[in-house]
Amino acid sequence: MLGRAALRPSAMIRPMAKSGGIDLGGTKIQAVIVDEDHSVLGSSRRQTPTSGGPAAVAREMEIALRDASKAAEIEPAELAGVGVGSPGVIEDGNVRGARNLPDWEGTFPLAATLQDALGCEVRVGNDVQVATDAEFSLGAGRLYSSLLGVFWGTGVGGGLILAGEPWIGRGGAGEIGHVVVELDGARCTCGRRGCMEAYAGRAAMELHVRKLHEEKGRKTDLFKLMQEADRTRLTSGIWARALEHGDKLAGQVLDRAVRALGAGIASVVNVLDVEGVVIGGGLGIRLGHPYAKRISDEMLPHLFNDTQPPHVHVAALGDLGGAIGASLLIRPEA
Amino acid sequence: MLGRAALRPSAMIRPMAKSGGIDLGGTKIQAVIVDEDHSVLGSSRRQTPTSGGPAAVAREMEIALRDASKAAEIEPAELAGVGVGSPGVIEDGNVRGARNLPDWEGTFPLAATLQDALGCEVRVGNDVQVATDAEFSLGAGRLYSSLLGVFWGTGVGGGLILAGEPWIGRGGAGEIGHVVVELDGARCTCGRRGCMEAYAGRAAMELHVRKLHEEKGRKTDLFKLMQEADRTRLTSGIWARALEHGDKLAGQVLDRAVRALGAGIASVVNVLDVEGVVIGGGLGIRLGHPYAKRISDEMLPHLFNDTQPPHVHVAALGDLGGAIGASLLIRPEA
Repeated sequence: MLGRAALRPSAMIRPMAKSGGIDLGGTKIQAVIVDEDHSVLGSSRRQTPTSGGPAAVAREMEIALRDASKAAEIEPAELAGVGVGSPGVIEDGNVRGARNLPDWEGTFPLAATLQDALGCEVRVGNDVQVATDAEFSLGAGRLYSSLLGVFWGTGVGGGLILAGEPWIGRGGAGEIGHVVVELDGARCTCGRRGCMEAYAGRAAMELHVRKLHEEKGRKTDLFKLMQEADRTRLTSGIWARALEHGDKLAGQVLDRAVRALGAGIASVVNVLDVEGVVIGGGLGIRLGHPYAKRISDEMLPHLFNDTQPPHVHVAALGDLGGAIGASLLIRPEA
Repeated sequence: MLGRAALRPSAMIRPMAKSGGIDLGGTKIQAVIVDEDHSVLGSSRRQTPTSGGPAAVAREMEIALRDASKAAEIEPAELAGVGVGSPGVIEDGNVRGARNLPDWEGTFPLAATLQDALGCEVRVGNDVQVATDAEFSLGAGRLYSSLLGVFWGTGVGGGLILAGEPWIGRGGAGEIGHVVVELDGARCTCGRRGCMEAYAGRAAMELHVRKLHEEKGRKTDLFKLMQEADRTRLTSGIWARALEHGDKLAGQVLDRAVRALGAGIASVVNVLDVEGVVIGGGLGIRLGHPYAKRISDEMLPHLFNDTQPPHVHVAALGDLGGAIGASLLIRPEA
């Protein structure tokens, strides 16, 4: 049985040399090279392939890491190692059940595949937990001993730090996206009903707005903006642009997402009474402080101890937080 | 800042002599005298007064403890001490915000009042947390290192053990009754909307069924049974008796409660991935295993990791768990 992870993150962050980090998301792959002070020396971003399965994804990850290495003027084989933050269930570097990734059936040996390709040690951790660890160790959560990380992107993931240490339960903790905010509510991309992610996950939001647009004839520029940007999905950037254009339907769908986030996050705070909440993820970062404030405001009516609400921050490490967090997996003592 | 409580409960449970425990609930006051092995030597139960404020409540607590002492053939002043599990916010033996208790405005010095009355040391802890500690140390949760206690009574309280230690956050953790299960849902007795307790708390259930009966003309024997039992509230026993009589409306209101409990508890399990769940409280104990099984079944459709659901048990210490847990506050090393 797992529970609290063995090491304090603060003890994890002393790599002796340059290391790499890769954040594997449902939409993008972000790679960084960092020095021993966690400063980013080089970075690269690629789209997550939508076909070709795990092998194609691993190949794009390799390219991203090589590009970041080139920018940092180092060979991958010279790195102390590369950490990977991945969705799904991770055991010994193998990844299964990564349902936001294409055709990821069965278990794929991600660490071994990348290790062969890059010529250095590769460690794989949970994407959301490494991003939470990064915000706790280096980012917006560094003043707190208890922290909830909420990663608002394709899905909505959660990471926990309690009494200064990651809490992973039996290995499956942090599924804040599947907190129920509405009994018999909207269908979630996970198949269940009423999950927070069914309202706030970008994948679910896209399905919802497409239905309103195509079936109910509601007007929106979202899909036009998507085509102009040569994208096949409504990325965080496209949502942000639609808001800037005053797109009413985009605003309404985001309002619905924010209400669900407020209720779901407040529910978790009612149970755990953490000191701080950090909002990250593609949408969280892109929509920034105004939306973190709105989420905080939507939490308030649901907070039982509303005289002492937790502080709500945008992830300070921004888009690179997941990849920097992944690089923290590489440490001399482990 | 608090967080994890300082001592392992397993280190707390070595009182050198007989001690007392009082569980102060919204409906009843339960007192026990236990020996060093936590065996109950005497017990007494009284109704929580519905008027007279904190002083009247403290007076009934004193009487209950004296009655239990008489049954155990010991004087209160000879006890190693008396522990109290109280609702509300507890600081240094003072209790405030105990909203399920009558006229409990401001802060009341509960420990000092009882100490004067009983002539022995009195310590006050959170009712739900001491009951959870008792189930973890001595009851249905003793095989687990992580545990969620759900106390289903007048309200719905939650207690947490994570990595073998109580988790109380900044002092206000465990408010599982106020997890949102329905955005814009039923009005809760706390004033908010859609809380789990708005469907499952006995106080909210009574308001709901009274409305259906008096305003909508729905038939039920609940209020007749209440009068026959010479009660002024629908106690857990009355709900149980109505079910035994095949009271259709009582069954429907309980079904609604169970659905809310399933969703709310599953939400917390999705975030924390605890090994076990213990269902206690007046209704939880009285309705027993069949209802614990029904709650477990209602959790399943909402569990993200549904291949590894947590074990759901009825509180093994039964009605006395809260009072036995309170007695654990008395320990030589503290």
